[in-house]
Amino acid sequence: MLDNPPIGTTMRALIKEHAAPGAAIRELPVPQPGPGELLIQVQAASVCGTDVHIERWDEWAQANFGPPPMTFGHEMAGIVVARGPGVTRIPIGATVAAETHIVDWTCYQCRTGRAYVCQHMRILGVHVPGTFAQYVVLPEANAWVYEDLPFEIAALQEPLGNAVFSAFVEDVAGQTAVVTGCGPIGLMSVAVLKKAGARAVFATDLNPERREMATRMGADLVLDPRNDDVVARLRDETDGNGVDIVLEMSGASAALHQGLAAVTNGGRVSLLGTHATPTTIDLSQEVIFKGIRIYGITGRRLWDTWYRTTALLEEGLDVSPIITHRLPLDEYATAFDLVASGHAGKIVLLPQLESGSAE
Amino acid sequence: MLDNPPIGTTMRALIKEHAAPGAAIRELPVPQPGPGELLIQVQAASVCGTDVHIERWDEWAQANFGPPPMTFGHEMAGIVVARGPGVTRIPIGATVAAETHIVDWTCYQCRTGRAYVCQHMRILGVHVPGTFAQYVVLPEANAWVYEDLPFEIAALQEPLGNAVFSAFVEDVAGQTAVVTGCGPIGLMSVAVLKKAGARAVFATDLNPERREMATRMGADLVLDPRNDDVVARLRDETDGNGVDIVLEMSGASAALHQGLAAVTNGGRVSLLGTHATPTTIDLSQEVIFKGIRIYGITGRRLWDTWYRTTALLEEGLDVSPIITHRLPLDEYATAFDLVASGHAGKIVLLPQLESGSAE
Amino acid sequence: MLDNPPIGTTMRALIKEHAAPGAAIRELPVPQPGPGELLIQVQAASVCGTDVHIERWDEWAQANFGPPPMTFGHEMAGIVVARGPGVTRIPIGATVAAETHIVDWTCYQCRTGRAYVCQHMRILGVHVPGTFAQYVVLPEANAWVYEDLPFEIAALQEPLGNAVFSAFVEDVAGQTAVVTGCGPIGLMSVAVLKKAGARAVFATDLNPERREMATRMGADLVLDPRNDDVVARLRDETDGNGVDIVLEMSGASAALHQGLAAVTNGGRVSLLGTHATPTTIDLSQEVIFKGIRIYGITGRRLWDTWYRTTALLEEGLDVSPIITHRLPLDEYATAFDLVASGHAGKIVLLPQLESGSAE
Amino acid sequence: MLDNPPIGTTMRALIKEHAAPGAAIRELPVPQPGPGELLIQVQAASVCGTDVHIERWDEWAQANFGPPPMTFGHEMAGIVVARGPGVTRIPIGATVAAETHIVDWTCYQCRTGRAYVCQHMRILGVHVPGTFAQYVVLPEANAWVYEDLPFEIAALQEPLGNAVFSAFVEDVAGQTAVVTGCGPIGLMSVAVLKKAGARAVFATDLNPERREMATRMGADLVLDPRNDDVVARLRDETDGNGVDIVLEMSGASAALHQGLAAVTNGGRVSLLGTHATPTTIDLSQEVIFKGIRIYGITGRRLWDTWYRTTALLEEGLDVSPIITHRLPLDEYATAFDLVASGHAGKIVLLPQLESGSAE
Repeated sequence: MLDNPPIGTTMRALIKEHAAPGAAIRELPVPQPGPGELLIQVQAASVCGTDVHIERWDEWAQANFGPPPMTFGHEMAGIVVARGPGVTRIPIGATVAAETHIVDWTCYQCRTGRAYVCQHMRILGVHVPGTFAQYVVLPEANAWVYEDLPFEIAALQEPLGNAVFSAFVEDVAGQTAVVTGCGPIGLMSVAVLKKAGARAVFATDLNPERREMATRMGADLVLDPRNDDVVARLRDETDGNGVDIVLEMSGASAALHQGLAAVTNGGRVSLLGTHATPTTIDLSQEVIFKGIRIYGITGRRLWDTWYRTTALLEEGLDVSPIITHRLPLDEYATAFDLVASGHAGKIVLLPQLESGSAE
Repeated sequence: MLDNPPIGTTMRALIKEHAAPGAAIRELPVPQPGPGELLIQVQAASVCGTDVHIERWDEWAQANFGPPPMTFGHEMAGIVVARGPGVTRIPIGATVAAETHIVDWTCYQCRTGRAYVCQHMRILGVHVPGTFAQYVVLPEANAWVYEDLPFEIAALQEPLGNAVFSAFVEDVAGQTAVVTGCGPIGLMSVAVLKKAGARAVFATDLNPERREMATRMGADLVLDPRNDDVVARLRDETDGNGVDIVLEMSGASAALHQGLAAVTNGGRVSLLGTHATPTTIDLSQEVIFKGIRIYGITGRRLWDTWYRTTALLEEGLDVSPIITHRLPLDEYATAFDLVASGHAGKIVLLPQLESGSAE
Repeated sequence: MLDNPPIGTTMRALIKEHAAPGAAIRELPVPQPGPGELLIQVQAASVCGTDVHIERWDEWAQANFGPPPMTFGHEMAGIVVARGPGVTRIPIGATVAAETHIVDWTCYQCRTGRAYVCQHMRILGVHVPGTFAQYVVLPEANAWVYEDLPFEIAALQEPLGNAVFSAFVEDVAGQTAVVTGCGPIGLMSVAVLKKAGARAVFATDLNPERREMATRMGADLVLDPRNDDVVARLRDETDGNGVDIVLEMSGASAALHQGLAAVTNGGRVSLLGTHATPTTIDLSQEVIFKGIRIYGITGRRLWDTWYRTTALLEEGLDVSPIITHRLPLDEYATAFDLVASGHAGKIVLLPQLESGSAE
Repeated sequence: MLDNPPIGTTMRALIKEHAAPGAAIRELPVPQPGPGELLIQVQAASVCGTDVHIERWDEWAQANFGPPPMTFGHEMAGIVVARGPGVTRIPIGATVAAETHIVDWTCYQCRTGRAYVCQHMRILGVHVPGTFAQYVVLPEANAWVYEDLPFEIAALQEPLGNAVFSAFVEDVAGQTAVVTGCGPIGLMSVAVLKKAGARAVFATDLNPERREMATRMGADLVLDPRNDDVVARLRDETDGNGVDIVLEMSGASAALHQGLAAVTNGGRVSLLGTHATPTTIDLSQEVIFKGIRIYGITGRRLWDTWYRTTALLEEGLDVSPIITHRLPLDEYATAFDLVASGHAGKIVLLPQLESGSAE
């Protein structure tokens, strides 16, 4: 798989063909990199919840994607196989992962260290053709060169970066933390917090398989919000003080309220899980009188988060347990069903693999 | 008024006598300072919205105050006239204002620089006898010694400290800001932001008198949420970027949503105005995808905020325009009605003044 | 002067012709902007101490400049008159100032918000042709578009940015500060600190003219290190605590030691003034046991500092008093002698002005 | 040793008897705790370099200690056996370690979160009788209650706190670091950095035994400044960037210069090792043009640092390898000689142990 095959004129790609549920494998022309762009042979493309939204064509997808027909997918690692005019920094043959937020670098946010909330952001696989394909075009400015990582782990650096950004908006060492929601990013957050010397890391999820995985990722205590009194247990475990850090990764209103109740006065809460519907909050009791800080988190700091993320992987952070399935691109339907069912951790699609040859 | 009259055995005090609406002036024994406590002759006691809640005996007051009978009021400046055992730092004759949050100094929060969210906080005039009286007992640890300020301004250091804490959770110089809600703390916030070199300070309020005062306090533009398109105007005024800083001082859900819509991506919001009822927020759109930071603010940093507050007053910060009325203690009913009506800025009660002698 | 004259084929420029003391006005071809570059008609080019080092050809200049022959000068404001290939953001006719640090945007520092210490920095007028000329070529990425500022003030945004960066590495409002060294950047620092609500701003300089200017810029107290006991006076003025903030702008060892002695325990010191020779410091007594923070400052944060700088100017920060002379380019020798003598504040060269027509 | 023996009327104590080199074991009255004070039975008292300075009676000791006769020693863990008037928080029987900086809690520094640089600090075992004794009196406010730690580890929390404070002035996870100087605090710093997820931790020391211990504490690479090109090696190990973090723990000028040369542009340096003589620094090249931050570190944040320190120990931080000797109090001379020779890690004196019974 590491060999650099000759670039054909066409490639297989998974596309959203029509403005309706579903997706399809199609043979498309291999795209040409324009000025400042790279052509990348995709070796691993992991599946994000966003991809399922696009496949299912929910309200968010209808409002944001495309327009169809367009390839989707955004988490990726691969090999640079061609360079457009003006590319000088990254050589052919380099292994790269994708920063999926394509920003304008010139707005107020981009010019003040906050490119992750660029005013004119386009997202790979949402607004421009994505990574569920044998090849993808990416601005050189969005390629993160790495070394010595398996492709499937390298592809995970993008969602792992969400976890790293969420965790490190303030320091972590010697602090107690709870991660509410043990999807892939929540699970990686558990590992990140442990790696960074958190005193104790707690986790909650409704799903028993995910709770079991949280334990494997190193959580000191994993609670079931249906059967455990989460807030009371977290107070007990923290000398009655509550936890210093809440990483809200579920997007569930109930989990957020538990986090706000469990956080110690003057503590901090990172919100990453997106909420499909508005949430009702008693701001006086849950936020103001507790004197807490809430951070809305999206994307990754360019490039602080990537440096930290890669460094933690180099230093031995192990996120491989969250990968439960590796599938050829053709088996995308299986992948999406598994993600939607909650019976999977992370699923990695392998666009260079022939169908039927998956592990 | 600056002379230090002999301490009698009784004093006039405004008390909440029964668990019901209303208040009453009573002649009470002058209290004795216990170990570590000061007896302070109250020269100025300004009226806070909290006092009106207590007088009106609303739900919050029923749940938190007292129990009656007890003196209320908490904003204060006066003269130390006696000291309990063990007091050594503050001499008799010192002029002091009150930090109204009486904290335990030993909990996790107090021992990590966050006494403003002490786990065992008691509040002057809410849980212990307050300052609407000729004398009040205060822990020496809660007395802020100041010099060269009029009593009425010195008393305002407590709510001004709320404004200072809200404004300075991050830096201010060269930033744009909006203050939503122009009650006394909002109005003082306008002046604080201008004094600290904010680039432009905007303000909103439904009440035309308050809008007019915001202009007097230095706001660059004051908007009426009923008639102005607040968000559009603030975008216009900030090159389309939105404001860097939102200080939410109203406790109104509509104002909060305007602030969240007006804040620039990656900006910050301080919440000080307390909300009587829960608020519905679209966390994904209003917080997460904007990458903003929200600070719940209560009280004042001990004692960073007080140092800053006094320093700003010394440096020429002028909050005197917000004082619209000075009344003897006996005219408390007038004061509370004025505050409740919204037709007043700050009202200062003068417990040493005979009735009928007010300005 | 605001009219946009036709671009000729040659221009007057002040160059360092040989690797030796001196400089010369020469007629050079108007340079052509390359890819991503602007051609700017220089309307104001202020003189920095660095320019005098280059003209005098001291050790630093010998090691860093050029090689000759090359135009020098770097502080600048002007009008965009032509654009090289690929320039899209900044239109012809825009008024721009120059960020003088030309960075690679790809090193570790540039990719983590610290471009001001880029590993491959080139400096305008030191490593590439500078601004003491009728025209200069500048990367579009280094041009700061501004509006509604006189050219001479716009040119000062570069050194003013040094002052802004030095002052705002931590917050300023309500804090006491001393500026040691009242050259142009020190003088602007005084004004910046006052504008940002510092409680009291002190200044020191050996030169009586500069002390007088510090007073004009708003310093609360200006001391003469030869005749005043600086440390004792600053302790007196700060209730015995020492100052919160030291901005060391002189590059003089004696001033640094005074700053370190005057700073309050746990305070902070910004070092901007460059030291020609090594300095001997008692680290235990002057730094460690005092628990202070020292910030080495160079350049400006891209672009946070520029946003703040422009915002403060818009908000009324007045740095015009430091401009003592405006001269045509031909009178450069007078300018350099004045700067070297210490009898000038800031001198602005006007390359579009005919000789003999200066104010 | 855990049993709580009856308190006799006299105790053995190691005192500095005269203002001259040497020390002596004496039988002294067991001290009485005054108001707000605890009497603590000392179970473990580790030896700090400061104690050797006092025993040897060097210039620093002559200027700071005592006056003699007085017990010295300050690192300690023990059991509360009696309480003076007014003590309420800590019960008899509690196991406590000592914060050795006795601060006034009322100065500007103490009231703004910087008690570690209190203006009126007294140090246990330097200005008031110390812990090289069977019993010591300590203000309740200086006692840190802990649970479930061996006494010898509990005593190390004080110097470990120095390491924790030095490391965590900024965040650590995913960053590269070098510790210059592998005495006990340097060695503990290595372990702290690794525990907090540093990407790579380097260490330097002239002493081969200490270098060997640094490896045991987890350092990724340990260098000998006499034989290794420290700066070149650290650049090599960090992709040419230099290290993000320098913890200067040696107090040696040469080590400091290596740290300043090795730190990446815009990185940070903590200075903890005290320098016996002034140091000559090229501020322009070593500090200013590199844009670095230097933190003078003394003591521990009260009580943030203690919470973090205890939490890291609970979370599995293992500092036990640095303890090389455990000796009864009587063998103090051996202990001091070992520390002075550099052939020891940390030595713990056991005041409750009869002479001759040491491990």
